[in-house]
Order: sequence, then structure tokens, then C-alpha cells
Amino acid sequence: MLRTDIKKKKLFITNNFDRDWVVESSSAAKNCKNYIREIVDTLDLQPNPTKDVIALSIGDPTVYGNLKPSEETVQAVIDVVQSGKYNGYAPCTGYEQARDAVATYLSHDGARFSFQDIILCSGCSSSLEICITALCDEKRNHNLLIPKPGFSIYRTLAETIGIKVKYYNLIAENNWEVDLENLEKQIDCFTAAIILNNPSNPCGSVYSEKHLKEILGIARLHQIPVIADEIYEQIVFSKNKFVSTAALNLDLPILICGGLAKRFLVPGWRLGWIAIHDNSDAFSKNIRKALVSLSQRIIGSNTLIQGALPKILFDTPQIFHDNLINTLETNATMIFKLLKEAKGLLPYMPQGTMYMMVKVYLKRFPFEDISHLVIKLMEEESVFCLPGSCFQTPDFIRIVLTVPENLLREACSRMIHFCNKYCTTT
Amino acid sequence: MLRTDIKKKKLFITNNFDRDWVVESSSAAKNCKNYIREIVDTLDLQPNPTKDVIALSIGDPTVYGNLKPSEETVQAVIDVVQSGKYNGYAPCTGYEQARDAVATYLSHDGARFSFQDIILCSGCSSSLEICITALCDEKRNHNLLIPKPGFSIYRTLAETIGIKVKYYNLIAENNWEVDLENLEKQIDCFTAAIILNNPSNPCGSVYSEKHLKEILGIARLHQIPVIADEIYEQIVFSKNKFVSTAALNLDLPILICGGLAKRFLVPGWRLGWIAIHDNSDAFSKNIRKALVSLSQRIIGSNTLIQGALPKILFDTPQIFHDNLINTLETNATMIFKLLKEAKGLLPYMPQGTMYMMVKVYLKRFPFEDISHLVIKLMEEESVFCLPGSCFQTPDFIRIVLTVPENLLREACSRMIHFCNKYCTTT
Ligand SMILES: Cc1ncc(COP(=O)(O)O)c(C=O)c1O
Ligand SMILES: Cc1ncc(COP(=O)(O)O)c(C=O)c1O
Repeated sequence: MLRTDIKKKKLFITNNFDRDWVVESSSAAKNCKNYIREIVDTLDLQPNPTKDVIALSIGDPTVYGNLKPSEETVQAVIDVVQSGKYNGYAPCTGYEQARDAVATYLSHDGARFSFQDIILCSGCSSSLEICITALCDEKRNHNLLIPKPGFSIYRTLAETIGIKVKYYNLIAENNWEVDLENLEKQIDCFTAAIILNNPSNPCGSVYSEKHLKEILGIARLHQIPVIADEIYEQIVFSKNKFVSTAALNLDLPILICGGLAKRFLVPGWRLGWIAIHDNSDAFSKNIRKALVSLSQRIIGSNTLIQGALPKILFDTPQIFHDNLINTLETNATMIFKLLKEAKGLLPYMPQGTMYMMVKVYLKRFPFEDISHLVIKLMEEESVFCLPGSCFQTPDFIRIVLTVPENLLREACSRMIHFCNKYCTTT
Repeated sequence: MLRTDIKKKKLFITNNFDRDWVVESSSAAKNCKNYIREIVDTLDLQPNPTKDVIALSIGDPTVYGNLKPSEETVQAVIDVVQSGKYNGYAPCTGYEQARDAVATYLSHDGARFSFQDIILCSGCSSSLEICITALCDEKRNHNLLIPKPGFSIYRTLAETIGIKVKYYNLIAENNWEVDLENLEKQIDCFTAAIILNNPSNPCGSVYSEKHLKEILGIARLHQIPVIADEIYEQIVFSKNKFVSTAALNLDLPILICGGLAKRFLVPGWRLGWIAIHDNSDAFSKNIRKALVSLSQRIIGSNTLIQGALPKILFDTPQIFHDNLINTLETNATMIFKLLKEAKGLLPYMPQGTMYMMVKVYLKRFPFEDISHLVIKLMEEESVFCLPGSCFQTPDFIRIVLTVPENLLREACSRMIHFCNKYCTTT
């Protein structure tokens, strides 16, 4: 057999060879941006060394140790590990038993799913990635409608595959309901899907059945499929009710994304799902197959968590869920009351989730923009909030409700002190 | 505020509205094909009802229950679950401690890694997806070189993002070494990367240091980065030695993909890694950042397994690894010996991994093609082997070595009976 004589060829190579070798990254990689990180990394955050830092920025409910998964959840995983039965490959879409558990779990208030409607994914982020990739096509010049304010991963995932995003507005004064007219205006013949996030990060809004029907009515009218990010399902405060898009049983195709991360307090476990709700059978011909195909790329989610899923979903006692909501609502009520006393701030009481948006009357502060205020707040009070620019809404800050009560109280009093110092009355 | 009157607009909608609503899937989804499934699903597999089915096709070592993870591995996960410390989000690239463990684990025989060189992923499939997506760009008309025979996921991942694959040949008679001349011929100015799989699925080959240097020499000469799929690292039979591409310390940029799936017998746990080996710093400017960015899309792998990773990697006793290799080698030796007696077959003794390739002299059989033979073997003997067409090599079948010995023995004797019945001597 002939073999290329490499050594001979090397004679032609100049000394610059190695120094010049810089491998380009793909357009996809270049377009794959973490918008929160990009903003936060530009902030020169120097806390006040005399005060402990209180981070009201981190969307991880477990980070302070005060919120933990239920004992039943933990035990279910231990049992599964000990059983030795869940170490092999599951089907890419998940074990039938685990998919069936999710189907049952989501079948309430008139919504009906079977295991064939469920695809298990590596976290809700992976669910969103698969849905967006299945529906949106750069080759057809597609765009994706996403909420503003909204979670930045939608944009990241869309732009990575060359899809343009267009924003539709949420109205702060209206409990962050969708500006329907604005939504409808954004739709064009290249719109491949609308992402709806209810309950919402960062807004903390929980939509009524009536409002959901209005939104979905527009999608249906224009024949645009909906991706419903319901990762905060059921995390709603008293007097509010979570209504899933599936419960409305409308004749339009919806991909519902969810998972264990928030309600079961285990974001690191990376168990997400897609639930296909499609009374009109618009997804039957292509999209169901597309979702399955795309799930084969990384072969789904961890099998131990899949094995424990039925017990996690059904044996976690109601009191666990009630406690979580109580904690969040108590914290929200407290912050709301306290921050109303801060000059130049206007807190918006959330109806659910783990977040509160607080409007900043920037003109009344001697700061250039919201980033400047956030930096100064850190510098003087060692309190860190995410600037609303992370969610495309520059005159807000987002506060996380999962921080222990005493720290939240302390953070609020520091914020009040800070605002009352800098805010000029108008 | 004005709201669109949806009801009014609906008057314009014809009755055909709902029936016509078929949502197209994206090009990416359409191009995302599971080639093994596509071939297997076309086979009309009807086992002989009088004989128990023996599947020699499934690349999941845990499926028969004879191969299990070590007790240390299982205990490490239980400890981590019980600690309650690993439920939150890890950084997208993994906990530093877990990345550090992988770096140490891979630093042997002259290879040196630090935790910054390691990115944890949701299984080796996800590692490959990230590497291919970072390096290959449809907009620059890139192609990707992959081995033939080879594992089909490379093609699936590449084609999903619009990348053409080109095959380079492995030479069966030469212990499946790379046909270097053929490899070099495939390279053109659009070649973004070469995938090298050592030890190889499906071939069971283990390359010598000398041969690896020849392959990498060609990549270096043409300045093509290498993606080294080393998921079967260390699974090599006596007299062979596993040499990682990293151990050669050559001046070319390599992304090494690996994980726990095979050597630690936990494919369902979805813990993979990318190890960046880049003496020439060709990846420093763009590719390191690209890999981190792309890992943000799905936020890495399960945190429980990450937490257990140091113990899994370092506390699993050598005897566990030795036992696995003994089992595989014993099975390989037995099958090799037995199938040499089958007319019309030529088994190739593997040097490692969990597979053996067996050549079929098709012309000596009354079957149209390899699929036909596979179907008949199932129909008469209830033995199922993957046709080589799944790996782009139609005159082979692949046999899995992880099946319990008694079943393998029985399967071989049925195959011998079958071949001796149908094969005509030449
Ligand atoms: C609105 C929203 N969707 C999706 C996700 C991602 O969830 P997961 O951690 O399951 O990927 C988050 C996480 O914060 C979120 O806030
Ligand atoms: C060569 C090769 N690479 C990668 C993989 C995927 O490994 P994982 O299960 O960790 O995604 C496999 C699985 O069979 C394989 O054979």
C-alpha cells in the first residue's frame, strides 16, 4: 500500500505555519450568545467591603440552601440508583413509564395527554432547543416571536440556528399581559412560532384563562404554532390559578415545555419535557417526527431521574408545594411593601413564579442607565439585582424571591437607604 | 387600549382552515436522521417462534444485566444525592471540581489537562454535537471527514446543521487502520474537521502510536482540526495499549470526546466530556469560547453525576476494569473461534471495545444483500445482528460482545448452522 510521504511534504511548509493556525468558529457558535452574561460581565461589580453581598440576581432557587427538594423526591432517586435498573440507555424520547407519568401529571383541568405526546429532554432548555429547531427554518427565512420582557434563552437558541427574533410587548401596568395589538403586528408570513411564557420569568405574571384565549386566538387566526414555556406551572400565589394552554383545548398546535427545575427545586437534574397538544393534528404529519428525530442527537435525559419521575411527580406531598408557594408569596408581599417606601422605585407585585420586577424611575437618579445604578448599588450596599436590560427592558430591575427572608429584608432596607439617598423628588 | 377584535376577523376564515393546517418541519429536523433506525425499521424482522431471540445488535452493555457499574460508582451517586448539595444549577461547562477530576483522569502517558480544558456535556453524543457545531459552518460550505465503517451519529449531527460528510476508508485487513492515502484525498479546502474514532465502534480496532501519528500528521499537514472520539478509551484487550491522541503531544488542535457510558457501564447517566488538547493554541482565540457558548444552550449535564464524578473516576477499582475487559476479550476470543467454523463468514478479531465485525461472503449465499441475510437469520434462528450497512459497510455484520457467554455461544452455534446450510462452497 502506498502511503503519503508526510515528511517530504513538510519541506514546503514555512515557519509561519504554527503561528498562523487560528481555527475559526462557526456562525452558529458566534451567534450563540448568553445575553445575561454579556451584560453582567460588562458590569464592573465591586461590592462594599464592609457589607456582605446579597445576590438577588441568581435564578437558582437552591442556591441559599433554604429551599430543598422533597424527601420523597430524594428517596425516589436513591431507590432508583440502588435498584440498578436504570443505568442503560433509555429510548431517546424517554422511558415509556416516565413519559406516561408526565402525561398523567399534566392531564388536569381538561387537558389530556398520553405518553406518545411526551418527549423527555435534558432540562427545559433542551426542550425549548428542540421545539425551536423543529419549527424554525433559516432556509425559509423564519422568525420567532418572543415576549419582552422575556427570558433570554429563546433569543440565544433561535439566533444560534440563524433565526431572527421579533419581540412582542408585555404591558407592565396590566399585570404584564400581552399587548395583543402589538403581538399581532409582529406576525408576518415568515413567523414560524410564538413563544408564550406563563407564568413568566422575569415578570412573575400569571395569565387568566380569558387572556390566554385572546393570545392563542391570535396565533390560531394567523395559523402560527405556539411554544408554551410553562416551566413555572403551578407556582402561582393565592387568588391566582395556573391555567395551562392545554386546558383550553383550542384547535391550535402547541408545544408545551416544562420540567422539574422550578416546582420540584432540582434545576441541576436536567429533566425537562415537551408535551404535544394538538387537537387540530397540525403537528401529526411532520412535527411529531421532527421532535423525535431531534431528540436522537443527544439521547435524552438522565435515566436515574427518569426512573424516579413517577414517584417525584406523584409522591411529593401537597404540603411541599404549598410551602414553596407560601415562602415565595410571603417574600413577595414583604418586598413589595418595603420597596414601595423606596424613592424612585415602583415594585410590581407578581402573581406567581420566583421573581419580582421593580420599575426604576431613572430620570430621578443621577445615573446614566440601569447598569450604572446596579453597579452603584453593589458598590455602596453590596446588593446585586439583575438589570432589566438582561430581559430587554432597561428601566427595571429583577429581584429573586427565593432568597431567605432575613437577607431579603436586609437587602430591601439597604436599597431603600440607597434610593432615598440618590433619588430626587419630582 | 385597543385590542384586535378576533371574532370579527374569524368571519373571513373558510371552513377548510383547520383541515389544511399542516405545520412543516425545519430542514434541520428533516436532515436529522437516525441511520441505524432507518435501516433496522425497514427490516421485516420475524423471529422463529420456537427459538428465543438473541439480540447481538444492541450497543448497550447493561441490557442483559450481566455487566453492572462498580459498587463505588453507585455509592458515590447515592452519597451525592443524600448530601443535598448537588441539586442546583452547575456552571454550563460543569462544576470546577468535576472538570478537574476529568482533567486528572485524562492526564496520563504524557497527556496533560487542566480543568479549563474540560467541558462536561450531556453524554458523549452531546460532546460530539458541540464540537461539530463549533467547528463546522454550513455558510462556509464546510464538510466533515468521518470513518467508514463508522458510527452513524457523526453523520446525523453533521447533516442536521447542513454539513456534508465525506468518508475516509478503514482497511479491514489491516486491523481497520485508516487508509491514509484515501484520507488525504478526501481533504479539500472546505474540510472543517476530521473525526477519528479510536478505539472504534463498529470495528473494535485499537490504533498504535505509530498509526495515530500518521493520521494526525496528515491532519496537521493540511491544518485540519481533529475531533477524537475516545469514548472506548482503555477498553482494549491484552497485548494492546490504548494511546490517546493527547498523549502524542503533537502540535495540532484536537477535541477529545469521551464519557462514562462505556468504561463505567452507565450509558443512561449521560455524562460526557470534551477535552481540549491544543499545543498550537489554534483553538485559543475562537474555539474555546465557541464550546463554552454552545454548552449554554442546554446547561450541561446532570449535577448528581457531576458531583459523584471524582469518586467514580478514582475509586472504581482496577479489578472492575480488568473484569470488564476479561469478559469482553473472552467473549471475543470464543466468538472468533466459533465463527471461523461458519461457512461464508470471516470474523475479524477486535483489539478492544464491545464489538466484532464479521465479513459475509455474500456471493456465496442465496441472499440479495446483507439485510436479506439478517432477516433470514432472524426468521430461522432468532439471532439478530446489525447489518454493516448501518455503518456504511454492506458486506459485514456487527456482533456485540457484551451479551452473556452462554447466549453468545448459543447464537454462534445457530449462526454456524444457518451459514453451513445456505453457503455454497466456491
Ligand atoms: C422561563 C424559563 N424557561 C426555561 C428555563 C430553563 O429551565 P431548565 O433549567 O429546566 O433548562 C428557565 C430557567 O430559569 C426559565 O426561567
Ligand atoms: C463511537 C461512539 N461515540 C459516541 C457514542 C455516544 O456515547 P454517549 O452514550 O455517551 O452519548 C457511542 C455510543 O454508542 C459510540 O459508539
